Amino acid sequence: MMEEVKHILLAKFKDGVSEEQIELLIKEYANLVNLIEPMKSFQWGKDVSIENLHQGFTHIFESTFENTEGIAEYISHPAHAEYANRFLAQLDKVLVVDYKPTRVHL
Amino acid sequence: MMEEVKHILLAKFKDGVSEEQIELLIKEYANLVNLIEPMKSFQWGKDVSIENLHQGFTHIFESTFENTEGIAEYISHPAHAEYANRFLAQLDKVLVVDYKPTRVHL
Repeated sequence: MMEEVKHILLAKFKDGVSEEQIELLIKEYANLVNLIEPMKSFQWGKDVSIENLHQGFTHIFESTFENTEGIAEYISHPAHAEYANRFLAQLDKVLVVDYKPTRVHL
Repeated sequence: MMEEVKHILLAKFKDGVSEEQIELLIKEYANLVNLIEPMKSFQWGKDVSIENLHQGFTHIFESTFENTEGIAEYISHPAHAEYANRFLAQLDKVLVVDYKPTRVHL
């Protein structure tokens, strides 16, 4: 199986950022797949959890990369830097983790 | 395509919890797939991010469910309740979000 690393970003937008602005920012985030070679896929969704352990985060963004070197290349890519500046300016909170998914064989 | 909801839990274990204890807790977490019908899959990994936005979380656990009702059933299941009590007792920090992955068509 191909090695894969998941890049998960949790976000809470600032008060006053409109749904239209959020929708546009998500489209631009998704479009990074077309601009940055090591970024292989992108998906997102709103938090729908019921345990009240979300710590205020409302949006989840998950992208995949072939390896950790690919994430490093993504982070330093000019298209990412330009986007990240604008995206982060609209956020109240952000959290990022990367991990290589492991299945447990019982 | 089948509807799917992802349940993501971020954890930071308490100081003093050994690697052996963590390994056992992860196996028991994975075994919930065998005990709770709506839980369809489980994978996990250690945080390997380089942006220093992980807020201290070190472990990522991702399980999938057919729908949000399945997650509610999982949360209230006795096997989950019993496990969650023991698992959460070993954690310094926990964060949980659920989301239905959406792809963006550009």
